[in-house]
Amino acid sequence: MSRFWSPSIQSLVPYTPGEQPQVEGLIKLNTNENPYPPAPAVRDVLDQFDTSRLRLYPDPESALLKQSLAHTHGLNTNQVFIGNGSDEVLALTFMALLRQDKPLLLPETTYSFYNVYIDLYGIEARHIELTDDFRIDLSQYQQPNGGIIFANPNAPTGISVPLSEIRALLESNTDSVVVVDEAYVDFGAESATALIDQYPNLLVTQTFSKSRSLAGLRIGCAFGHADLIEALERVKNSFNSYPLDMLAQAVAVASLEDENYFRSRLDQVIATREWTNQQLQTLGFEVLPSHTNFVFASHPNVSGAELMAYLRENKILVRHFTKPRIENHLRITIGTDDEMQTLINYLQQHPKL
Amino acid sequence: MSRFWSPSIQSLVPYTPGEQPQVEGLIKLNTNENPYPPAPAVRDVLDQFDTSRLRLYPDPESALLKQSLAHTHGLNTNQVFIGNGSDEVLALTFMALLRQDKPLLLPETTYSFYNVYIDLYGIEARHIELTDDFRIDLSQYQQPNGGIIFANPNAPTGISVPLSEIRALLESNTDSVVVVDEAYVDFGAESATALIDQYPNLLVTQTFSKSRSLAGLRIGCAFGHADLIEALERVKNSFNSYPLDMLAQAVAVASLEDENYFRSRLDQVIATREWTNQQLQTLGFEVLPSHTNFVFASHPNVSGAELMAYLRENKILVRHFTKPRIENHLRITIGTDDEMQTLINYLQQHPKL
Repeated sequence: MSRFWSPSIQSLVPYTPGEQPQVEGLIKLNTNENPYPPAPAVRDVLDQFDTSRLRLYPDPESALLKQSLAHTHGLNTNQVFIGNGSDEVLALTFMALLRQDKPLLLPETTYSFYNVYIDLYGIEARHIELTDDFRIDLSQYQQPNGGIIFANPNAPTGISVPLSEIRALLESNTDSVVVVDEAYVDFGAESATALIDQYPNLLVTQTFSKSRSLAGLRIGCAFGHADLIEALERVKNSFNSYPLDMLAQAVAVASLEDENYFRSRLDQVIATREWTNQQLQTLGFEVLPSHTNFVFASHPNVSGAELMAYLRENKILVRHFTKPRIENHLRITIGTDDEMQTLINYLQQHPKL
Repeated sequence: MSRFWSPSIQSLVPYTPGEQPQVEGLIKLNTNENPYPPAPAVRDVLDQFDTSRLRLYPDPESALLKQSLAHTHGLNTNQVFIGNGSDEVLALTFMALLRQDKPLLLPETTYSFYNVYIDLYGIEARHIELTDDFRIDLSQYQQPNGGIIFANPNAPTGISVPLSEIRALLESNTDSVVVVDEAYVDFGAESATALIDQYPNLLVTQTFSKSRSLAGLRIGCAFGHADLIEALERVKNSFNSYPLDMLAQAVAVASLEDENYFRSRLDQVIATREWTNQQLQTLGFEVLPSHTNFVFASHPNVSGAELMAYLRENKILVRHFTKPRIENHLRITIGTDDEMQTLINYLQQHPKL
């Protein structure tokens, strides 16, 4: 703290990302990274990129990438927004659309960055508990609000809500923006992008970090009515006109063009997730039904903190949250089959399991 | 405009960057890009980069790049901040340090993005006129304030203030942050980074976009007392934890390691600038003394708007601002010798010159 800081930032509690250790030989199952490399064409993009072009500014509109995303999702380019990772897209969404007079509604247990944005912008918020089985019950969001945001599938639970329930919410909630954060949607949930043409207050955010194995390049996007996208563009262009660099734009387009590779890696992650789920249940874990590239599990005999420490000693990183209701859970990213076999082997050797 | 927008953004007037036309064969002297490619080692970085690593998140601290920048400037790593282009660094600086109860002081004529941030965050500001010869007179900034920001060299004038005048300001202005935006400093001005250890309220921002020919990769930085840097980190980590991607971090380090190439390209741009300046004066232009990679010039016989249109017809893009006092000027980026010769040739053929 310093007397030179803006008064409003003195009480900020920034987001804490999962650890990125520089130690070799760790099995890293703590930040929901994809275990497989990005599309092979990414190598070609780097090989063929004319580095002298880097002296020029990138296209501030990311036009080619917008066209490619619009084509992929059956949308127009004016329904597509691009940002520096979906965290930036969310930060701009909160600024552009969710600073309202009435309270923002969001789940009590969800992606913890939402509360950091609420803090940063001084937004009034109402947190709604998950059900006893850790689901988001959207019928509870039918109350006066200045906006609604939730992750689908939700994090860190991994559970998704069906599209029919999102549609029902949009039918009754027509006066405020509903943001569906689909960071993990490709791993088995139904995307709300199919509803964009019908509901002018729906914004869907996605990322290339998880399902497209491009966390290292920071590529996020949002889809919605052109008016909502225009709000995001205005705020982006009042904050940072050129957030996505040339290489990231070119690589993202190459990734979108290889649908077969994308699908085959998703299928592999999903198969490994189902195997892992089964193995954990055999060991007595309670595992929530996941539509993501992670599982959220707890064990009646051993605490989450103890299990995390035990795995860490054995060079396996998983994520643990010290929040009420989920403090006994572990969030375990789905790695390769070998990595998950090693995880299960160590758990089998734990004296209390 | 839409009823779904946050009320505070409805009146925003976003920054308008210089045009990035997709037309071939243009001589592009409108956005102050460097005419030379980045350091040759940039090619090696792309060739050798293991693309499978892109599945992982980048280092959120950009630690290697911070070390390299700290080494280059004789600072500690906790005196260095990294962002997604210097526009993001400035956006975070306004949020973290310049939202104060007293008014922010800045030049009436300077980088126009400052006024966009002032608008975005609702900051009270007092604009101080340049002198009759377009200089920033820092003695006029010795008045009550919640912060001071200016570009050195200033844009679009290109004129720099000597370090002695910045030191004099810092000696008397000890209760608010002084931000010196050094986007163009490498082209001949004195950097205030030399004063950082003496003045805890000094923040210096720089970019890799101009002097390092890396506009396409979005790399900006700030230098200052560890307390100021901590404020920027807090806000960054409340907005977007991973703004700089893996490739940008690796390329930036490679650029910093090739000091010889860097100096030789700077010398070339400076030599071309001085030649251009001379040629323009021979044609009757008034040219402000530039320490940047552009010149700011006006002609008594032909308006700036007319000259810009004439050059555009001949496939040369320059920048023109419709602001009082500078509406008759052109801002002309320094290109290669050939490009500047072509510019001068066309100007010589203009009927009124």
